[in-house]
Amino acid sequence: MKALWLDDGGMKIAEIPRPRPAAGEALIRVMAAGVCRTDLELARGYMNFSGVPGHEFAGVVEECEDRDRLGKTVTGEINLACGACPFCWSGLSRHCPAREVLGIVKRPGAFAEFLTLPVENLHELPAGMTPETGVFVEPVAACFEMLGQVSARAKRAAVLGDGKLGILAARTLIGEAPSRLVLVGRHPEKLALVERDGIETMLVAEFEQEVAAPDRRFELVVEATGRAEGFSTALAAVRPRGVIVQKSTVAGLVPVDLSRVVVDEVTVAGSRCGPFGPAIAALASGRVRVDDLVTARFPLSRAVEAMEAARAPGALKVLLEMKDDAGP
Amino acid sequence: MKALWLDDGGMKIAEIPRPRPAAGEALIRVMAAGVCRTDLELARGYMNFSGVPGHEFAGVVEECEDRDRLGKTVTGEINLACGACPFCWSGLSRHCPAREVLGIVKRPGAFAEFLTLPVENLHELPAGMTPETGVFVEPVAACFEMLGQVSARAKRAAVLGDGKLGILAARTLIGEAPSRLVLVGRHPEKLALVERDGIETMLVAEFEQEVAAPDRRFELVVEATGRAEGFSTALAAVRPRGVIVQKSTVAGLVPVDLSRVVVDEVTVAGSRCGPFGPAIAALASGRVRVDDLVTARFPLSRAVEAMEAARAPGALKVLLEMKDDAGP
Repeated sequence: MKALWLDDGGMKIAEIPRPRPAAGEALIRVMAAGVCRTDLELARGYMNFSGVPGHEFAGVVEECEDRDRLGKTVTGEINLACGACPFCWSGLSRHCPAREVLGIVKRPGAFAEFLTLPVENLHELPAGMTPETGVFVEPVAACFEMLGQVSARAKRAAVLGDGKLGILAARTLIGEAPSRLVLVGRHPEKLALVERDGIETMLVAEFEQEVAAPDRRFELVVEATGRAEGFSTALAAVRPRGVIVQKSTVAGLVPVDLSRVVVDEVTVAGSRCGPFGPAIAALASGRVRVDDLVTARFPLSRAVEAMEAARAPGALKVLLEMKDDAGP
Repeated sequence: MKALWLDDGGMKIAEIPRPRPAAGEALIRVMAAGVCRTDLELARGYMNFSGVPGHEFAGVVEECEDRDRLGKTVTGEINLACGACPFCWSGLSRHCPAREVLGIVKRPGAFAEFLTLPVENLHELPAGMTPETGVFVEPVAACFEMLGQVSARAKRAAVLGDGKLGILAARTLIGEAPSRLVLVGRHPEKLALVERDGIETMLVAEFEQEVAAPDRRFELVVEATGRAEGFSTALAAVRPRGVIVQKSTVAGLVPVDLSRVVVDEVTVAGSRCGPFGPAIAALASGRVRVDDLVTARFPLSRAVEAMEAARAPGALKVLLEMKDDAGP
């Protein structure tokens, strides 16, 4: 089958064997997949990854022991836990130290014609949800993870970063009845997308001026800039006893003013993958809109271009759509 | 009156005017004061401090509008809030941006014959509690602050740092019924102090080897090393979804592996000053022992030596005792 292949030599479209589902796994024909910032980081050498990237997808079950699942359109949770360690026993399977992660750790990912996943990882998409929307389940779930960690209700909240993650985080938070919600970014055209959702927006410089006044600072700041310096902006913006939800993963060591964390008794909560159920419901109900976030679509055969397009300034979600991919 | 005076030129004993209590304040004759690591940092230029340091003390009320307080032995909360800002209104007066802090920000401190504090900051010591024990109320309160932020109950907990703060933190936590509690340090003679309290101890190298195994990591790690590299040790030791309570204030920027915070969904809680009531009760009942922590006592006239003694390796609490100070 065709797949995007990353290794030391860069990235290319390769012809590789179709994966075979192990016992308890399903074979899924990928219909659509989304390029995430993590994929771009993997292509730059993050985690010494080599193989097929891609972890946001929707597809159709083609092989499965449970015949009821055949032909269903699904997406899937990306962490494959061992099921046999203290983390798995205590409900922390997303943190199993032996886990594989679809398209990130050991397990070949979704930028391919087919992938395999254990059936317990699969979530059927509701009737009427397109594969294109299904691709957003994983990143929206990552936003819902915050809500299990911290409440936004009646809080002054700011989301830093007007990329995909920041926009989805803001759209997830607005339904929680914060007393104020500001999305902070550098791109007026991206900020404009959330104004329709009733979310206030600010450019970074304007925001930094605002939070120079201690009593204008925020009880909740979500750091989703994808930049190393984002954390400092968050720390300057958060109130004493406030919470920073750190969503960006930035490779390497980031200089942090820890004494400010202590003196202001700030809480920093790292936040990663989240629950698929609430994300599917929020996408199905329209609570979280994603219709305006796709900036480009490519067939799998042009996945290298898709990665480049996702890296371009101004890009939001870039999709791979496999339906156009029957060609040579 | 006599006082220790810090400024650009270093530190010296100076003769300065006795402070006058403003309306609502009391004049307190200091009986004993403790040297804290913060005082040593101030002497090194932290916060560009100049004036009289010292914020751990016990003393006797000599002047006060409320005559019932005269002659009482007290200690005092160190944050002087403005009482008129949104922080003060919302119960965050310890974080009032306009606050003075005894011996740290604007307000002359306790390394002097007298100090003044608002009467609402004062806490009378229970009958039978010596001024020497009263000096520990402030640092023990800072340890109780943790318990308002995170539960140690049934958790595997580690305290990093065998200095005063680490020892007091461990003694505060052991009463919370953690499933395991380890104090980690570099000084066998200091670690030995807490073994009598039923607290397990480890040297740093031994601990680092222990936590190399993911399932040996800790759900709660208290960072009280006073060293910049303490945070990295804490991050290596904490479990996914675990909590690091950051107590050390380290000047400058500390390099932090934020991606580990995100991937492991670690929570970092900065923790500073705490509630005096529980601290006084814990010292009075003996729940938190401090009888073995005083390594040297000096009269106020020898406060410069006291600061040097507090900086020496192996030092724990160094006290100034004003009773011996009537001399020339």
